[in-house]
Amino acid sequence: MIGVLITFEGPDGGGKTTQLGLLAEHLRGRGCTVLCTREPGGTALGDKIRGLLLDPANREMAARTEALLYMAARAQHVAEVIAPALARGEVVLSDRFADSTLVYQGAARQLTRGELAAINAFATGGVAPDLTILLDGDAGMLGGRLAGRGGADRIEREADAFHASVRQGFRELAAAEPERVKPVAAGGTVAEVQAAVVRIVEEFLHRRTYG
Amino acid sequence: MIGVLITFEGPDGGGKTTQLGLLAEHLRGRGCTVLCTREPGGTALGDKIRGLLLDPANREMAARTEALLYMAARAQHVAEVIAPALARGEVVLSDRFADSTLVYQGAARQLTRGELAAINAFATGGVAPDLTILLDGDAGMLGGRLAGRGGADRIEREADAFHASVRQGFRELAAAEPERVKPVAAGGTVAEVQAAVVRIVEEFLHRRTYG
Repeated sequence: MIGVLITFEGPDGGGKTTQLGLLAEHLRGRGCTVLCTREPGGTALGDKIRGLLLDPANREMAARTEALLYMAARAQHVAEVIAPALARGEVVLSDRFADSTLVYQGAARQLTRGELAAINAFATGGVAPDLTILLDGDAGMLGGRLAGRGGADRIEREADAFHASVRQGFRELAAAEPERVKPVAAGGTVAEVQAAVVRIVEEFLHRRTYG
Repeated sequence: MIGVLITFEGPDGGGKTTQLGLLAEHLRGRGCTVLCTREPGGTALGDKIRGLLLDPANREMAARTEALLYMAARAQHVAEVIAPALARGEVVLSDRFADSTLVYQGAARQLTRGELAAINAFATGGVAPDLTILLDGDAGMLGGRLAGRGGADRIEREADAFHASVRQGFRELAAAEPERVKPVAAGGTVAEVQAAVVRIVEEFLHRRTYG
């Protein structure tokens, strides 16, 4: 059996977590065994690494350190959670995965995407998403949703220019890999976005089954 | 001004920390500004990462995760401590550095040395040791010294085969880079080993100054 890895990507505040949960419900309803996970984190050790990444006390963190910590958490996530689930033939839904590192560290921290991709390949041992849902919205809408959540963490405090660069990076990614990366406008209602996500996933599963 | 980076490498229990301190005293006595540091760690964030690496609770750690955590701690160490000291023209002495990762993860965990070297180059941004003192002893002697220290950590609990592989990896390193990596037999008295280390370092500094 070979499972399927579907990732949700995009800027913070685009509704990734909500939509991931709704897609899991939908897929379970049609008989799939679904495993939901997230990055950074997804394992006990990954959560400890996530704590280091998000702690405002670590503001002296070098860009290369940050990238390598994300990669370390991912290596553990793949080895402990994702690869075993794929081997069992399950559908794995991940809230963020490799694309986030490439976009956040590459586009916004000026590390080269080639270097990051090579380290990512080491971290994952070659496990890559079969389908990626990119939830993209306009900056004003996302800012409003985030503000409603209260205390901002270290990443969220970065300047607006950073967020603009991140959004641009995700768009370039979708343009570069249109077969895998499917953008969905995050500006609609939850039900509208959900319908768009389900349509994309069903089409993917149909293509995968019937070629 | 361009500083000098001298690293101490070798299996645990070979006296690296003691010899590093003695060399620092010697160099300060001849007028050098010396900065002593160590890996994993060397920074507040690096110490937190070191805590994850040595905690027996993290026994599920995948080999790739471990390698990436060492690299993350190194990236921070270089950016925050080593590169600024070298830019100030200081002599930096580090208790372990990149060679430890290549040998421990490469030789003993079956990760390829080429992959690890590429990630290391990313982590360090190209900062590499000018001279490396390899303190090498026989396995029985090292085991005895370690036993005398009490509680073994996660790394120290690994099987003897692991330690044999590590010692072999360090020897291959010395054979591959004889100009940089200088082996010193760790079996002598502290004073004997110190004399050998000082001789190597003085010769290196002389060569560096007078070509």
